[in-house]
Amino acid sequence: MILEEALDEFEIIRMIIDTIGQPKPRFSKIGDDVAYLPKKRGKVVIKSDMLVEKTDVPKGMDLWQVSRKSIVMCVSDFSAKGVVPSAALISLGIPRGMKESEIRELARGFKIAKEEFGIEILGGDTNEADCIIIDCCMVGFADKIVERKGAKPGDLVITSGFFGYSSSGLKIMLDNLKANPEFKESAVSSVVMPNPRLRLGVALAKRNLMSSSIDSSDGLAFSLHEIAMHSKVGIEINNLPTTDDVKNFAEMNHLSLNDLVLYGGEEYEIIATIPKDKLYEAQRLAKRMGERIITIGKVTDDFPKVRLLLDEREIEIERKGWIHLK
Amino acid sequence: MILEEALDEFEIIRMIIDTIGQPKPRFSKIGDDVAYLPKKRGKVVIKSDMLVEKTDVPKGMDLWQVSRKSIVMCVSDFSAKGVVPSAALISLGIPRGMKESEIRELARGFKIAKEEFGIEILGGDTNEADCIIIDCCMVGFADKIVERKGAKPGDLVITSGFFGYSSSGLKIMLDNLKANPEFKESAVSSVVMPNPRLRLGVALAKRNLMSSSIDSSDGLAFSLHEIAMHSKVGIEINNLPTTDDVKNFAEMNHLSLNDLVLYGGEEYEIIATIPKDKLYEAQRLAKRMGERIITIGKVTDDFPKVRLLLDEREIEIERKGWIHLK
Repeated sequence: MILEEALDEFEIIRMIIDTIGQPKPRFSKIGDDVAYLPKKRGKVVIKSDMLVEKTDVPKGMDLWQVSRKSIVMCVSDFSAKGVVPSAALISLGIPRGMKESEIRELARGFKIAKEEFGIEILGGDTNEADCIIIDCCMVGFADKIVERKGAKPGDLVITSGFFGYSSSGLKIMLDNLKANPEFKESAVSSVVMPNPRLRLGVALAKRNLMSSSIDSSDGLAFSLHEIAMHSKVGIEINNLPTTDDVKNFAEMNHLSLNDLVLYGGEEYEIIATIPKDKLYEAQRLAKRMGERIITIGKVTDDFPKVRLLLDEREIEIERKGWIHLK
Repeated sequence: MILEEALDEFEIIRMIIDTIGQPKPRFSKIGDDVAYLPKKRGKVVIKSDMLVEKTDVPKGMDLWQVSRKSIVMCVSDFSAKGVVPSAALISLGIPRGMKESEIRELARGFKIAKEEFGIEILGGDTNEADCIIIDCCMVGFADKIVERKGAKPGDLVITSGFFGYSSSGLKIMLDNLKANPEFKESAVSSVVMPNPRLRLGVALAKRNLMSSSIDSSDGLAFSLHEIAMHSKVGIEINNLPTTDDVKNFAEMNHLSLNDLVLYGGEEYEIIATIPKDKLYEAQRLAKRMGERIITIGKVTDDFPKVRLLLDEREIEIERKGWIHLK
């Protein structure tokens, strides 16, 4: 039996490079002070997102899912902006004494994400920290990005998927709430294996179909408020993007369905506004890709009100979601 | 008296933007899912570096110096590669309950660095963590970068400054070693207010004077080994780049001068190789900028040996420095 020993930063870097492989030609190899990527047309688009094990990772998540998710967090933002990501840097904080097999798991998650989203990993940094910390910095190129501002009264509000799964999944993982087996699987999966809609976002942006857009990782309510605020518009929701499975789970556990759907977070869906006359084209496009576009409401001129209109009842949607340090 | 209360992530972001200001026109404003910067010629150069309070910040360092240093760490790499940095993203890990005045201090350090190095800060991410964690991701443009490989036998080895100050400064700060007041000040200053040689590095690269180059933050010995390894050359050092002040400090505390100078770290100087016939031009250039170039040895064909030749004694320089998690 071979005992696993703790690794130093250079052994860690070597192991990660061995697992993920070196970048394609025209990108820099991993190992110099800085990395570079080939220039393309338009603007250089960048994003960084930090995952902290202690606050962002529920127990029960595999290490390769953690490292994959650290990349998904950035990819999701690129999806909403309609930009193809090109490359990433990874800064790693590693607790002292982490095992070789655990590092290998992390590296495998990076490799999975690299292949899944077609990005090159060009390097990064390794440090000692109290828990796993992964900061992903992503770079891409675009002539223009779809911004949070741009929504016009009369536009339709859409999402790329159903909400309530990840908030339910978190409650199942953290508080051990009851759920029927199939729902449990899909709810937990939406937490540990989030699926950003990169191809859809890029396709919609390419055809100029979205007037504004945001990544939903701070929750549906908060994201709608962001679009309202940046676009200086109001929003009226008349269709909660959720499923009977989520409703059943809410009833079974005496939870508020609205809370699960509106005030969760980490869904990694696209929330966008689309001019009315472009909806059909957007839906056809989504269908061809096996994706969906769910119309949930419309943009109004009642800035900055965000309201839910269901069964003739009107509810104010609050500007809240998952907020760090709150 | 107004009690300071803990801030949530949005209040933190707002305060930082208020302090550092929004980026120049043509750069994205802070606040969307991704940031962008205007395209320039050549390659897109990126670098990320993570500072972890618990392992990277000695007691006695002000918070604005910590945040400034997190940016210096990246700027130093750009200096050695001869690339002007253009913009940065900051991912922040913040301990719960950090005070408004402390966040303001951090923000002030970012602003100081932003102005000192002429970079735009385009956004980032805020999280909860056990101690302050700052991951800086920096982006710039260059037609080519000076790599670690490229040194040729016969080239001269140079540094942009003296070594031993930051290792001495750390010992003064951590172990309270004795030192005369002036040396104490400059040694501690080299730890808390490091001074990367950005203008010098960019000027040397522009005139194509360096055949290889590296940032010295892992220590002189380690960096020399990196150049030797990547360039497949040997290196012979016959002049330790240090001062009588460091020598006195070493004697006063019975420390090895060689250890202080060779195996310290965090000096943020440029270590480079220069073809012999270009040394004069490089030195004149440095002098005009108020900088210095210290010739410390030469490149040999004795790959991968890195040796110190002093007073007819030959010592092997080990491939070691400050290694995280070791």
